[in-house]
Amino acid sequence: MAGETLVTGKTPKTGKAPVTGETPVAGETLAGYLREQATEFLRSLRQHRESSAEEAAEPALALRAAARRISGALHTFRPLLDADWSDQLRAELAWLSGTLAREHAYAARLDRLIGALHRLSPAGPGAGRGPSVPAQSGGLTVGAAKAGALIERQLTLARTRAHSTALQALGSSRFHAVADGVAVLASEVPLRRDAAGHPLAPFASDVEARLNEAVAALPLVRAGHPYNAEALLHGLAADAAPESQDTPWHQVRLLLRLHRYAQEAVGVEPGHDLRLLGAGQALDRHRDAAEAATAAASAARTPRIAPATAYALGVLHADQRHEVEAARFAFQAVWRRNASAPSDRPVSTP
Amino acid sequence: MAGETLVTGKTPKTGKAPVTGETPVAGETLAGYLREQATEFLRSLRQHRESSAEEAAEPALALRAAARRISGALHTFRPLLDADWSDQLRAELAWLSGTLAREHAYAARLDRLIGALHRLSPAGPGAGRGPSVPAQSGGLTVGAAKAGALIERQLTLARTRAHSTALQALGSSRFHAVADGVAVLASEVPLRRDAAGHPLAPFASDVEARLNEAVAALPLVRAGHPYNAEALLHGLAADAAPESQDTPWHQVRLLLRLHRYAQEAVGVEPGHDLRLLGAGQALDRHRDAAEAATAAASAARTPRIAPATAYALGVLHADQRHEVEAARFAFQAVWRRNASAPSDRPVSTP
Repeated sequence: MAGETLVTGKTPKTGKAPVTGETPVAGETLAGYLREQATEFLRSLRQHRESSAEEAAEPALALRAAARRISGALHTFRPLLDADWSDQLRAELAWLSGTLAREHAYAARLDRLIGALHRLSPAGPGAGRGPSVPAQSGGLTVGAAKAGALIERQLTLARTRAHSTALQALGSSRFHAVADGVAVLASEVPLRRDAAGHPLAPFASDVEARLNEAVAALPLVRAGHPYNAEALLHGLAADAAPESQDTPWHQVRLLLRLHRYAQEAVGVEPGHDLRLLGAGQALDRHRDAAEAATAAASAARTPRIAPATAYALGVLHADQRHEVEAARFAFQAVWRRNASAPSDRPVSTP
Repeated sequence: MAGETLVTGKTPKTGKAPVTGETPVAGETLAGYLREQATEFLRSLRQHRESSAEEAAEPALALRAAARRISGALHTFRPLLDADWSDQLRAELAWLSGTLAREHAYAARLDRLIGALHRLSPAGPGAGRGPSVPAQSGGLTVGAAKAGALIERQLTLARTRAHSTALQALGSSRFHAVADGVAVLASEVPLRRDAAGHPLAPFASDVEARLNEAVAALPLVRAGHPYNAEALLHGLAADAAPESQDTPWHQVRLLLRLHRYAQEAVGVEPGHDLRLLGAGQALDRHRDAAEAATAAASAARTPRIAPATAYALGVLHADQRHEVEAARFAFQAVWRRNASAPSDRPVSTP
């Protein structure tokens, strides 16, 4: 409902997607968007193959971005496409971007945690970076250094494994089938015959409605009270209690991205996207901090670690859970600002 | 300067303290205030002596409150009093209220930390309350229970010692000398002869000016940005880095109290006090959380504790440091609201 209002409300301004008559139709707009993303996917793939291991990160990012956009469009505009074909491609794209994302995620998590340890410890930029750091007086700074070394060891191992898995994946016949599927998209999008003249906006509105519904279910009022101590609630639970409170936020993060891509596909002006971008960045930070907190807690379960190491990991875990809470606060601030902005109010048709 | 503005600014409204003519003078107002507090001190002392150990907490609180007020008045209006006599009494009152405060502080710190552990651990109200709690599955909840037991042991021991020390103090000849000094105040305040007609307001303004100066030196802008991660900065330092950033806040807490008592002594209306009360409560919370965080860090230095215990203490330490940050945020919110309130703006004399 709100979604529909927004899209129709914006229509007269952009001049790109009037509701009647020249509304973007699958045949021209969706196919064009998918072709564009498929081409980008294939271009990044070629670049990734041709680059050295050191230079492969950027094309891998571009490849994943294109894969996510294709997957998003296949999902949002599913009724306009050959359902079996697109469901299958979407599942394979999810496998691919999941596999490619892992290496980057471990590297980013390591950076985040080592950065936090530096902030928490006055030992300077060398802390946690190997045995060359002289031991500090007092147990806790030694603990921070040891915690850093432990996290570095664990996440570097995980990252190396993810790297191998990604390389294997990119050489597999399963991957070649995905690339073939995307190549089909780049030349001819398998639209349903009756779909060619169908408007795209209602599908994008459906996504936005789902997003708004998911956001409405979030505890935004609580998140708007700073230092509500919610994110660390049950932070010492043996089970995944703190993580389960994150789930609806992660869900909104995915819907927000899906919405952003759907807006892209129907050609809504990028100014609108920039505002969504802020909300998306807050939720990315939410996800990153939540996963970093989990990594710190999990490192603390390593057998036979020193108490000082465990203490530092506890501080680190709590620090990242507060980052989670800070990200929720930031999200609600962006979201509420957006909600009260004039361009989001229903515009009565003249 | 701001202080003087405030007091003179308020004068016409309250009608209690006009600058000229009927300004409260030491002879009538200060002596009355000191007599009142001295009487309250002696009353609480009698009540404390007559009450059982279980009932002694309330009279002890009242005794300390009276001691603080007497001490504050002796400090603020020092030039109006016999300097040697009042300096000596003030030092002895500080010793007394410090000694009496310790037992209560340890008890409150234990409550705060056990409360925080319950919030952090889903094991329920029994966690950390002795061996009757069944061990939870998973290391960390066991860690929370063990951390609670360790903190309880350490703080209960400290509290018991503080209790003995307080009892000894109350039976000492040193204490009897303090009580004698207060009894003198209750009957005849040792004012300087030339002070009887001197107005009190300038002395109270001096205190307020010192308070405003100390507040102006606080990083209030930073404190106003929620989740600024300042309080946990260097939280893993071996030295007292996190504590040293607290010092100016603690200083403001003391000045705020001194100001509040000075306002009381000169008879400023209690509405003004109620607003200061909010700021004072935030700084009390700041102090309590800072000391609780230190206690958690110090418990983590206990030799031969389990890693899970140390981890829980790390989470607890960080949690309390975030409480410190939350209290700073609360203080700046109250303070800025006050600063922009009309009654704090300079009032031009008609």
